[in-house]
Amino acid sequence: MEGGARLFGRHGVFIVEAVSVVLVTPRNPVNIGAAGRAMANFGFGDLRLVEAYRVAAEEARGGPHAGQVLHDSRDFATLADAVADSTLVIGTTSAIRRDLKVEIKRLEDAAVAVKQNEGRVAILFGSEKFGLSNEDMGHCHWLVRIPTLEGAGSMNLGQAVAVTLYELVRQAPGVAPIVSEEPLANAAMLDEFVERLYEALQLAGYIHTENVIEKLRRLSRRMNLRQHDAVMWMGMVRQILWKLKSET
Amino acid sequence: MEGGARLFGRHGVFIVEAVSVVLVTPRNPVNIGAAGRAMANFGFGDLRLVEAYRVAAEEARGGPHAGQVLHDSRDFATLADAVADSTLVIGTTSAIRRDLKVEIKRLEDAAVAVKQNEGRVAILFGSEKFGLSNEDMGHCHWLVRIPTLEGAGSMNLGQAVAVTLYELVRQAPGVAPIVSEEPLANAAMLDEFVERLYEALQLAGYIHTENVIEKLRRLSRRMNLRQHDAVMWMGMVRQILWKLKSET
Repeated sequence: MEGGARLFGRHGVFIVEAVSVVLVTPRNPVNIGAAGRAMANFGFGDLRLVEAYRVAAEEARGGPHAGQVLHDSRDFATLADAVADSTLVIGTTSAIRRDLKVEIKRLEDAAVAVKQNEGRVAILFGSEKFGLSNEDMGHCHWLVRIPTLEGAGSMNLGQAVAVTLYELVRQAPGVAPIVSEEPLANAAMLDEFVERLYEALQLAGYIHTENVIEKLRRLSRRMNLRQHDAVMWMGMVRQILWKLKSET
Repeated sequence: MEGGARLFGRHGVFIVEAVSVVLVTPRNPVNIGAAGRAMANFGFGDLRLVEAYRVAAEEARGGPHAGQVLHDSRDFATLADAVADSTLVIGTTSAIRRDLKVEIKRLEDAAVAVKQNEGRVAILFGSEKFGLSNEDMGHCHWLVRIPTLEGAGSMNLGQAVAVTLYELVRQAPGVAPIVSEEPLANAAMLDEFVERLYEALQLAGYIHTENVIEKLRRLSRRMNLRQHDAVMWMGMVRQILWKLKSET
Protein backbone atom coordinates (compact mmCIF):
# COMPACT_ATOMS: atom_id res chain seq x y z
CA MET A 1 0.00 0.00 0.00
CA GLU A 2 1.83 3.04 -1.18
CA GLY A 3 1.19 6.37 0.50
CA GLY A 4 0.17 4.90 3.82
CA ALA A 5 -0.46 8.34 5.25
CA ARG A 6 -3.85 8.48 3.59
CA LEU A 7 -4.90 5.60 5.78
CA PHE A 8 -4.74 7.61 8.91
CA GLY A 9 -8.13 8.58 10.22
CA ARG A 10 -9.18 11.45 12.37
CA HIS A 11 -7.10 10.64 15.39
CA GLY A 12 -4.06 9.20 13.74
CA VAL A 13 -5.34 5.64 13.99
CA PHE A 14 -4.87 3.51 10.92
CA ILE A 15 -8.20 3.12 9.17
CA VAL A 16 -7.42 -0.53 8.64
CA GLU A 17 -7.05 -0.98 12.40
CA ALA A 18 -10.18 0.95 13.33
CA VAL A 19 -12.51 -1.06 11.10
CA SER A 20 -14.15 -4.37 11.97
CA VAL A 21 -15.82 -6.42 9.25
CA VAL A 22 -18.89 -8.13 10.69
CA LEU A 23 -20.53 -10.97 8.78
CA VAL A 24 -24.06 -11.47 10.07
CA THR A 25 -25.36 -15.04 9.85
CA PRO A 26 -22.94 -16.15 7.13
CA ARG A 27 -23.79 -19.59 5.80
CA ASN A 28 -21.22 -20.34 3.12
CA PRO A 29 -17.60 -21.11 4.07
CA VAL A 30 -16.44 -20.01 0.61
CA ASN A 31 -17.88 -16.56 1.21
CA ILE A 32 -16.40 -16.31 4.68
CA GLY A 33 -13.06 -17.25 3.18
CA ALA A 34 -13.45 -14.72 0.36
CA ALA A 35 -14.23 -11.96 2.86
CA GLY A 36 -11.11 -12.86 4.83
CA ARG A 37 -8.99 -12.86 1.71
CA ALA A 38 -10.20 -9.42 0.60
CA MET A 39 -9.49 -8.11 4.10
CA ALA A 40 -5.94 -9.45 3.97
CA ASN A 41 -5.43 -7.97 0.48
CA PHE A 42 -6.31 -4.51 1.72
CA GLY A 43 -4.64 -4.79 5.11
CA PHE A 44 -7.66 -5.22 7.40
CA GLY A 45 -7.46 -7.71 10.26
CA ASP A 46 -10.56 -7.71 12.47
CA LEU A 47 -13.20 -10.17 11.23
CA ARG A 48 -16.24 -10.94 13.37
CA LEU A 49 -18.85 -13.60 12.69
CA VAL A 50 -22.34 -13.31 14.16
CA GLU A 51 -24.44 -16.43 14.47
CA ALA A 52 -22.36 -18.18 11.86
CA TYR A 53 -23.15 -21.80 11.12
CA ARG A 54 -20.51 -23.53 13.20
CA VAL A 55 -19.67 -25.92 10.39
CA ALA A 56 -19.25 -23.08 7.89
CA ALA A 57 -16.99 -21.12 10.21
CA GLU A 58 -14.86 -24.14 10.96
CA GLU A 59 -14.56 -25.03 7.31
CA ALA A 60 -13.55 -21.47 6.39
CA ARG A 61 -10.93 -21.36 9.14
CA GLY A 62 -9.58 -24.76 8.14
CA GLY A 63 -9.49 -24.01 4.40
CA PRO A 64 -6.24 -24.50 2.48
CA HIS A 65 -5.83 -20.77 1.91
CA ALA A 66 -7.19 -19.57 5.25
CA GLY A 67 -4.83 -16.89 6.42
CA GLN A 68 -4.24 -14.92 9.57
CA VAL A 69 -7.48 -12.96 9.26
CA LEU A 70 -9.63 -16.08 9.38
CA HIS A 71 -7.46 -17.57 12.07
CA ASP A 72 -7.94 -14.48 14.24
CA SER A 73 -11.66 -14.10 13.46
CA ARG A 74 -14.05 -14.20 16.39
CA ASP A 75 -17.55 -15.58 16.89
CA PHE A 76 -20.35 -13.61 18.51
CA ALA A 77 -23.72 -14.91 19.64
CA THR A 78 -25.53 -11.66 18.89
CA LEU A 79 -25.02 -8.64 16.71
CA ALA A 80 -25.28 -6.41 19.77
CA ASP A 81 -22.25 -8.17 21.26
CA ALA A 82 -20.30 -7.91 18.04
CA VAL A 83 -20.70 -4.14 17.76
CA ALA A 84 -20.67 -3.25 21.46
CA ASP A 85 -17.25 -1.56 21.26
CA SER A 86 -18.02 0.43 18.09
CA THR A 87 -18.97 4.09 17.91
CA LEU A 88 -20.11 3.86 14.31
CA VAL A 89 -22.06 0.91 12.93
CA ILE A 90 -22.73 0.80 9.19
CA GLY A 91 -24.92 -1.68 7.37
CA THR A 92 -24.37 -2.57 3.74
CA THR A 93 -27.09 -3.12 1.19
CA SER A 94 -27.12 -3.52 -2.54
CA ALA A 95 -30.83 -3.02 -2.81
CA ILE A 96 -32.48 0.35 -3.20
CA ARG A 97 -35.12 0.21 -0.52
CA ARG A 98 -37.14 3.34 -0.20
CA ASP A 99 -39.21 1.85 2.61
CA LEU A 100 -36.31 1.97 5.03
CA LYS A 101 -36.25 4.62 7.69
CA VAL A 102 -32.47 4.50 7.85
CA GLU A 103 -30.34 6.95 5.96
CA ILE A 104 -28.51 5.45 2.97
CA LYS A 105 -25.20 6.90 1.87
CA ARG A 106 -23.32 6.13 -1.29
CA LEU A 107 -20.17 4.12 -0.68
CA GLU A 108 -17.97 7.00 -1.82
CA ASP A 109 -19.46 9.33 0.77
CA ALA A 110 -19.50 6.67 3.44
CA ALA A 111 -15.74 6.26 3.21
CA VAL A 112 -15.23 9.89 4.16
CA ALA A 113 -17.46 9.46 7.21
CA VAL A 114 -15.59 6.32 8.24
CA LYS A 115 -12.29 8.14 8.10
CA GLN A 116 -13.64 10.98 10.20
CA ASN A 117 -15.11 8.77 12.90
CA GLU A 118 -13.61 8.52 16.34
CA GLY A 119 -13.33 5.03 17.71
CA ARG A 120 -14.13 1.68 16.19
CA VAL A 121 -16.22 1.32 13.03
CA ALA A 122 -18.18 -1.87 12.41
CA ILE A 123 -19.24 -2.58 8.84
CA LEU A 124 -21.98 -5.20 8.61
CA PHE A 125 -22.61 -7.58 5.75
CA GLY A 126 -25.75 -9.72 5.78
CA SER A 127 -26.13 -13.24 4.49
CA GLU A 128 -26.03 -13.70 0.71
CA LYS A 129 -29.59 -14.85 0.62
CA PHE A 130 -31.36 -12.30 2.75
CA GLY A 131 -28.96 -9.46 3.42
CA LEU A 132 -29.40 -7.64 6.70
CA SER A 133 -32.73 -7.95 8.49
CA ASN A 134 -34.70 -4.95 9.68
CA GLU A 135 -33.62 -5.83 13.19
CA ASP A 136 -29.97 -5.88 12.12
CA MET A 137 -30.43 -2.46 10.54
CA GLY A 138 -31.70 -1.16 13.86
CA HIS A 139 -28.15 -1.44 15.13
CA CYS A 140 -26.83 0.75 12.32
CA HIS A 141 -26.23 4.46 12.37
CA TRP A 142 -26.78 4.43 8.63
CA LEU A 143 -26.55 2.19 5.61
CA VAL A 144 -24.19 2.24 2.69
CA ARG A 145 -25.00 1.16 -0.82
CA ILE A 146 -22.50 0.09 -3.43
CA PRO A 147 -23.62 1.81 -6.66
CA THR A 148 -24.70 -1.29 -8.55
CA LEU A 149 -27.21 -1.25 -11.34
CA GLU A 150 -30.80 -1.27 -10.12
CA GLY A 151 -32.37 -4.62 -10.87
CA ALA A 152 -29.07 -6.38 -11.54
CA GLY A 153 -29.43 -8.49 -8.44
CA SER A 154 -27.39 -8.66 -5.29
CA MET A 155 -23.61 -8.67 -5.14
CA ASN A 156 -21.58 -11.68 -4.19
CA LEU A 157 -20.59 -11.33 -0.53
CA GLY A 158 -16.84 -11.59 -1.10
CA GLN A 159 -17.04 -9.03 -3.89
CA ALA A 160 -19.10 -6.65 -1.78
CA VAL A 161 -16.49 -6.84 0.99
CA ALA A 162 -13.67 -6.29 -1.51
CA VAL A 163 -15.28 -3.25 -3.11
CA THR A 164 -16.19 -1.70 0.24
CA LEU A 165 -12.70 -2.10 1.67
CA TYR A 166 -11.12 -0.89 -1.55
CA GLU A 167 -13.06 2.34 -1.27
CA LEU A 168 -11.71 2.81 2.26
CA VAL A 169 -8.06 2.48 1.28
CA ARG A 170 -8.53 4.16 -2.05
CA GLN A 171 -6.62 7.34 -2.54
CA ALA A 172 -8.91 10.10 -1.48
CA PRO A 173 -8.49 13.83 -1.66
CA GLY A 174 -7.36 15.14 1.71
CA VAL A 175 -9.94 14.72 4.38
CA ALA A 176 -10.01 17.71 6.63
CA PRO A 177 -9.67 16.90 10.29
CA ILE A 178 -12.47 17.97 12.57
CA VAL A 179 -11.81 19.58 15.90
CA SER A 180 -11.87 16.88 18.52
CA GLU A 181 -14.98 16.63 20.64
CA GLU A 182 -16.16 14.36 23.41
CA PRO A 183 -15.84 10.70 22.50
CA LEU A 184 -18.92 9.12 20.96
CA ALA A 185 -21.04 6.70 22.95
CA ASN A 186 -20.45 3.12 21.89
CA ALA A 187 -23.13 0.63 20.94
CA ALA A 188 -23.19 -1.01 24.37
CA MET A 189 -24.08 2.33 26.00
CA LEU A 190 -26.78 3.00 23.42
CA ASP A 191 -28.30 -0.44 23.95
CA GLU A 192 -28.42 0.11 27.70
CA PHE A 193 -30.16 3.45 27.15
CA VAL A 194 -32.67 1.92 24.76
CA GLU A 195 -33.51 -0.88 27.17
CA ARG A 196 -34.15 1.44 30.12
CA LEU A 197 -36.19 3.79 27.96
CA TYR A 198 -38.23 0.86 26.68
CA GLU A 199 -38.89 -0.24 30.24
CA ALA A 200 -40.06 3.24 31.21
CA LEU A 201 -42.33 3.45 28.19
CA GLN A 202 -43.87 0.09 29.02
CA LEU A 203 -44.67 1.25 32.54
CA ALA A 204 -46.14 4.44 31.13
CA GLY A 205 -48.40 2.47 28.79
CA TYR A 206 -46.78 3.79 25.62
CA ILE A 207 -46.00 0.42 24.08
CA HIS A 208 -48.89 -0.46 21.85
CA THR A 209 -47.35 -1.21 18.49
CA GLU A 210 -44.85 -3.75 17.31
CA ASN A 211 -41.13 -3.28 16.90
CA VAL A 212 -40.91 -0.45 19.41
CA ILE A 213 -37.51 -1.55 20.64
CA GLU A 214 -36.29 -1.66 17.04
CA LYS A 215 -37.61 1.86 16.47
CA LEU A 216 -35.95 3.07 19.65
CA ARG A 217 -32.68 1.49 18.63
CA ARG A 218 -32.75 3.25 15.29
CA LEU A 219 -33.72 6.51 16.97
CA SER A 220 -30.79 6.18 19.37
CA ARG A 221 -28.37 5.71 16.48
CA ARG A 222 -29.63 8.80 14.74
CA MET A 223 -29.00 10.87 17.90
CA ASN A 224 -25.24 10.86 17.39
CA LEU A 225 -24.75 10.74 21.15
CA ARG A 226 -21.49 11.70 22.80
CA GLN A 227 -20.54 9.79 25.94
CA HIS A 228 -21.47 12.61 28.33
CA ASP A 229 -24.83 13.02 26.59
CA ALA A 230 -25.45 9.30 26.89
CA VAL A 231 -24.66 9.51 30.61
CA MET A 232 -27.08 12.41 31.01
CA TRP A 233 -29.83 10.54 29.18
CA MET A 234 -29.25 7.43 31.28
CA GLY A 235 -29.56 9.52 34.43
CA MET A 236 -32.83 11.03 33.30
CA VAL A 237 -34.36 7.78 32.17
CA ARG A 238 -33.29 5.95 35.35
CA GLN A 239 -34.88 8.64 37.49
CA ILE A 240 -38.15 8.47 35.56
CA LEU A 241 -38.03 4.69 35.75
CA TRP A 242 -37.52 4.79 39.48
CA LYS A 243 -40.47 7.12 39.89
CA LEU A 244 -42.75 5.07 37.70
CA LYS A 245 -41.82 1.87 39.55
CA SER A 246 -42.27 3.41 42.97
CA GLU A 247 -45.81 4.35 42.14
CA THR A 248 -47.16 1.24 40.55
CA MET B 1 -27.06 3.38 -11.25
CA GLU B 2 -28.14 6.86 -10.37
CA GLY B 3 -26.66 9.80 -12.19
CA GLY B 4 -25.95 7.82 -15.34
CA ALA B 5 -24.35 10.87 -16.94
CA ARG B 6 -21.10 10.14 -15.14
CA LEU B 7 -20.81 6.95 -17.14
CA PHE B 8 -20.39 8.76 -20.41
CA GLY B 9 -16.85 8.78 -21.66
CA ARG B 10 -15.18 11.28 -23.88
CA HIS B 11 -17.27 10.68 -26.96
CA GLY B 12 -20.63 10.22 -25.37
CA VAL B 13 -20.34 6.45 -25.35
CA PHE B 14 -21.36 4.72 -22.18
CA ILE B 15 -18.23 3.56 -20.39
CA VAL B 16 -20.01 0.31 -19.61
CA GLU B 17 -20.51 -0.26 -23.33
CA ALA B 18 -16.98 0.70 -24.34
CA VAL B 19 -15.26 -1.73 -21.98
CA SER B 20 -14.58 -5.41 -22.62
CA VAL B 21 -13.52 -7.66 -19.76
CA VAL B 22 -11.04 -10.23 -21.07
CA LEU B 23 -10.25 -13.29 -18.96
CA VAL B 24 -7.00 -14.82 -20.18
CA THR B 25 -6.70 -18.59 -19.72
CA PRO B 26 -9.30 -18.84 -16.97
CA ARG B 27 -9.39 -22.28 -15.40
CA ASN B 28 -12.06 -22.14 -12.72
CA PRO B 29 -15.76 -21.94 -13.66
CA VAL B 30 -16.57 -20.36 -10.30
CA ASN B 31 -14.25 -17.47 -11.09
CA ILE B 32 -15.62 -17.03 -14.58
CA GLY B 33 -19.09 -16.96 -13.06
CA ALA B 34 -18.00 -14.45 -10.42
CA ALA B 35 -16.52 -12.15 -13.07
CA GLY B 36 -19.79 -12.28 -15.00
CA ARG B 37 -21.80 -11.51 -11.91
CA ALA B 38 -19.69 -8.48 -11.02
CA MET B 39 -20.04 -7.23 -14.60
CA ALA B 40 -23.82 -7.54 -14.41
CA ASN B 41 -23.87 -5.78 -11.04
CA PHE B 42 -22.09 -2.77 -12.47
CA GLY B 43 -23.80 -2.78 -15.85
CA PHE B 44 -21.04 -4.18 -18.09
CA GLY B 45 -21.94 -6.69 -20.78
CA ASP B 46 -18.97 -7.68 -22.95
CA LEU B 47 -17.08 -10.68 -21.53
CA ARG B 48 -14.38 -12.39 -23.58
CA LEU B 49 -12.60 -15.62 -22.72
CA VAL B 50 -9.16 -16.37 -24.16
CA GLU B 51 -7.97 -19.97 -24.28
CA ALA B 52 -10.44 -20.93 -21.59
CA TYR B 53 -10.67 -24.56 -20.63
CA ARG B 54 -13.69 -25.62 -22.62
CA VAL B 55 -15.12 -27.50 -19.66
CA ALA B 56 -14.73 -24.51 -17.34
CA ALA B 57 -16.39 -22.15 -19.81
CA GLU B 58 -19.27 -24.54 -20.39
CA GLU B 59 -19.77 -25.09 -16.70
CA ALA B 60 -19.78 -21.34 -16.01
CA ARG B 61 -22.31 -20.69 -18.77
CA GLY B 62 -24.51 -23.53 -17.59
CA GLY B 63 -24.35 -22.58 -13.91
CA PRO B 64 -27.58 -22.06 -11.98
CA HIS B 65 -27.00 -18.31 -11.66
CA ALA B 66 -25.39 -17.71 -15.06
CA GLY B 67 -26.96 -14.56 -16.42
CA GLN B 68 -27.01 -12.71 -19.68
CA VAL B 69 -23.35 -11.69 -19.46
CA LEU B 70 -22.12 -15.28 -19.38
CA HIS B 71 -24.65 -16.30 -21.99
CA ASP B 72 -23.37 -13.59 -24.34
CA SER B 73 -19.66 -14.19 -23.56
CA ARG B 74 -17.41 -15.10 -26.48
CA ASP B 75 -14.42 -17.43 -26.81
CA PHE B 76 -11.20 -16.39 -28.53
CA ALA B 77 -8.32 -18.63 -29.49
CA THR B 78 -5.69 -15.97 -28.94
CA LEU B 79 -5.34 -12.78 -26.94
CA ALA B 80 -4.50 -10.91 -30.14
CA ASP B 81 -7.91 -11.85 -31.57
CA ALA B 82 -9.68 -10.89 -28.37
CA VAL B 83 -8.27 -7.35 -28.30
CA ALA B 84 -8.14 -6.73 -32.05
CA ASP B 85 -10.98 -4.17 -31.97
CA SER B 86 -9.66 -2.25 -28.96
CA THR B 87 -7.77 1.05 -29.02
CA LEU B 88 -6.63 0.72 -25.41
CA VAL B 89 -5.55 -2.55 -23.80
CA ILE B 90 -4.90 -2.60 -20.09
CA GLY B 91 -3.45 -5.48 -18.10
CA THR B 92 -4.23 -5.95 -14.42
CA THR B 93 -1.77 -7.11 -11.80
CA SER B 94 -1.86 -7.25 -8.06
CA ALA B 95 1.85 -7.88 -7.76
CA ILE B 96 4.41 -5.11 -7.61
CA ARG B 97 6.85 -6.18 -10.26
CA ARG B 98 9.77 -3.86 -10.66
CA ASP B 99 11.23 -5.98 -13.43
CA LEU B 100 8.47 -5.06 -15.84
CA LYS B 101 9.16 -2.68 -18.65
CA VAL B 102 5.48 -1.70 -18.86
CA GLU B 103 4.12 1.37 -17.14
CA ILE B 104 1.98 0.59 -14.09
CA LYS B 105 -0.78 2.99 -13.08
CA ARG B 106 -2.76 2.99 -9.92
CA LEU B 107 -6.36 1.90 -10.45
CA GLU B 108 -7.67 5.35 -9.49
CA ASP B 109 -5.64 6.98 -12.25
CA ALA B 110 -6.37 4.25 -14.74
CA ALA B 111 -10.09 4.90 -14.52
CA VAL B 112 -9.59 8.47 -15.70
CA ALA B 113 -7.60 7.26 -18.71
CA VAL B 114 -10.27 4.70 -19.55
CA LYS B 115 -12.95 7.37 -19.56
CA GLN B 116 -10.90 9.59 -21.83
CA ASN B 117 -10.14 6.91 -24.38
CA GLU B 118 -11.71 6.89 -27.82
CA GLY B 119 -12.88 3.50 -28.95
CA ARG B 120 -13.01 0.18 -27.20
CA VAL B 121 -11.05 -0.56 -24.01
CA ALA B 122 -10.03 -4.12 -23.17
CA ILE B 123 -9.16 -4.88 -19.56
CA LEU B 124 -7.26 -8.14 -19.14
CA PHE B 125 -7.29 -10.41 -16.13
CA GLY B 126 -4.87 -13.34 -15.98
CA SER B 127 -5.46 -16.73 -14.47
CA GLU B 128 -5.62 -16.94 -10.68
CA LYS B 129 -2.53 -19.01 -10.49
CA PHE B 130 -0.13 -17.20 -12.77
CA GLY B 131 -1.66 -13.85 -13.61
CA LEU B 132 -0.79 -12.41 -17.01
CA SER B 133 2.31 -13.76 -18.72
CA ASN B 134 5.03 -11.52 -20.09
CA GLU B 135 3.71 -12.28 -23.54
CA ASP B 136 0.20 -11.22 -22.50
CA MET B 137 1.61 -7.98 -21.14
CA GLY B 138 3.18 -7.32 -24.51
CA HIS B 139 -0.35 -6.65 -25.79
CA CYS B 140 -0.97 -4.00 -23.14
CA HIS B 141 -0.56 -0.24 -23.44
CA TRP B 142 0.02 -0.21 -19.73
CA LEU B 143 -0.81 -2.11 -16.56
CA VAL B 144 -3.04 -1.24 -13.67
CA ARG B 145 -2.54 -2.28 -10.10
CA ILE B 146 -5.23 -2.45 -7.46
CA PRO B 147 -3.67 -0.91 -4.34
CA THR B 148 -3.44 -4.06 -2.25
CA LEU B 149 -0.98 -4.53 0.56
CA GLU B 150 2.44 -5.63 -0.61
CA GLY B 151 3.06 -9.23 0.36
CA ALA B 152 -0.61 -9.96 1.12
CA GLY B 153 -0.87 -12.29 -1.84
CA SER B 154 -2.90 -12.09 -5.00
CA MET B 155 -6.51 -11.08 -5.23
CA ASN B 156 -9.30 -13.45 -5.99
CA LEU B 157 -10.20 -13.08 -9.68
CA GLY B 158 -13.88 -12.27 -9.14
CA GLN B 159 -12.97 -9.70 -6.49
CA ALA B 160 -10.34 -8.09 -8.74
CA VAL B 161 -12.92 -7.73 -11.52
CA ALA B 162 -15.47 -6.29 -9.08
CA VAL B 163 -13.06 -3.71 -7.65
CA THR B 164 -11.80 -2.67 -11.09
CA LEU B 165 -15.28 -2.18 -12.53
CA TYR B 166 -16.43 -0.40 -9.40
CA GLU B 167 -13.67 2.16 -9.87
CA LEU B 168 -14.90 2.77 -13.43
CA VAL B 169 -18.50 3.49 -12.43
CA ARG B 170 -17.55 5.11 -9.17
CA GLN B 171 -19.04 8.46 -8.49
CA ALA B 172 -17.62 11.59 -9.88
CA PRO B 173 -18.16 14.20 -7.17
CA GLY B 174 -21.58 15.68 -6.77
CA VAL B 175 -24.11 12.91 -7.27
CA ALA B 176 -27.19 13.53 -5.22
CA PRO B 177 -27.89 11.22 -2.29
CA ILE B 178 -30.44 8.49 -2.94
CA VAL B 179 -32.71 8.92 0.00
CA SER B 180 -33.69 12.47 0.67
CA GLU B 181 -33.47 13.08 4.35
CA GLU B 182 -36.34 14.18 6.49
CA PRO B 183 -36.29 17.88 7.26
CA LEU B 184 -34.71 18.84 10.56
CA ALA B 185 -36.92 19.73 13.47
CA ASN B 186 -37.16 23.45 13.98
CA ALA B 187 -36.40 25.31 17.18
CA ALA B 188 -40.04 25.59 18.19
CA MET B 189 -40.42 21.81 18.12
CA LEU B 190 -37.21 21.36 20.10
CA ASP B 191 -38.33 23.90 22.70
CA GLU B 192 -41.66 22.17 23.12
CA PHE B 193 -39.85 18.87 23.57
CA VAL B 194 -37.47 20.35 26.12
CA GLU B 195 -40.30 21.88 28.14
CA ARG B 196 -42.31 18.67 28.34
CA LEU B 197 -39.18 16.68 29.21
CA TYR B 198 -38.35 19.20 31.93
CA GLU B 199 -41.83 18.86 33.35
CA ALA B 200 -41.54 15.07 33.42
CA LEU B 201 -38.16 15.25 35.12
CA GLN B 202 -39.51 17.59 37.76
CA LEU B 203 -42.32 15.17 38.56
CA ALA B 204 -39.81 12.33 38.71
CA GLY B 205 -37.66 14.24 41.18
CA TYR B 206 -34.67 14.57 38.86
CA ILE B 207 -34.34 18.34 39.02
CA HIS B 208 -31.87 19.16 41.73
CA THR B 209 -29.30 21.40 40.12
CA GLU B 210 -29.49 24.72 38.38
CA ASN B 211 -29.71 25.41 34.71
CA VAL B 212 -31.30 22.06 33.90
CA ILE B 213 -33.51 23.53 31.23
CA GLU B 214 -30.48 25.14 29.63
CA LYS B 215 -28.64 21.82 29.66
CA LEU B 216 -31.65 20.10 28.14
CA ARG B 217 -31.88 22.72 25.42
CA ARG B 218 -28.25 22.23 24.50
CA LEU B 219 -28.70 18.47 24.61
CA SER B 220 -31.69 18.74 22.28
CA ARG B 221 -29.63 20.75 19.79
CA ARG B 222 -26.85 18.20 19.80
CA MET B 223 -29.34 15.45 18.95
CA ASN B 224 -29.63 16.61 15.37
CA LEU B 225 -33.32 15.68 15.41
CA ARG B 226 -35.29 15.18 12.24
CA GLN B 227 -38.96 16.16 12.30
CA HIS B 228 -40.26 12.60 12.52
CA ASP B 229 -37.83 11.86 15.35
CA ALA B 230 -38.99 14.94 17.21
CA VAL B 231 -42.60 13.79 16.84
CA MET B 232 -41.66 10.37 18.22
CA TRP B 233 -39.87 11.90 21.19
CA MET B 234 -42.80 14.19 21.92
CA GLY B 235 -45.13 11.20 21.90
CA MET B 236 -42.96 9.31 24.35
CA VAL B 237 -42.46 12.23 26.71
CA ARG B 238 -46.16 13.14 26.69
CA GLN B 239 -47.09 9.56 27.56
CA ILE B 240 -44.62 9.45 30.44
CA LEU B 241 -45.84 12.81 31.61
CA TRP B 242 -49.44 11.67 31.55
CA LYS B 243 -48.55 8.59 33.59
CA LEU B 244 -46.55 10.56 36.14
CA LYS B 245 -49.36 13.09 36.54
CA SER B 246 -52.06 10.45 36.85
CA GLU B 247 -50.26 8.89 39.77
CA THR B 248 -49.34 11.85 41.88
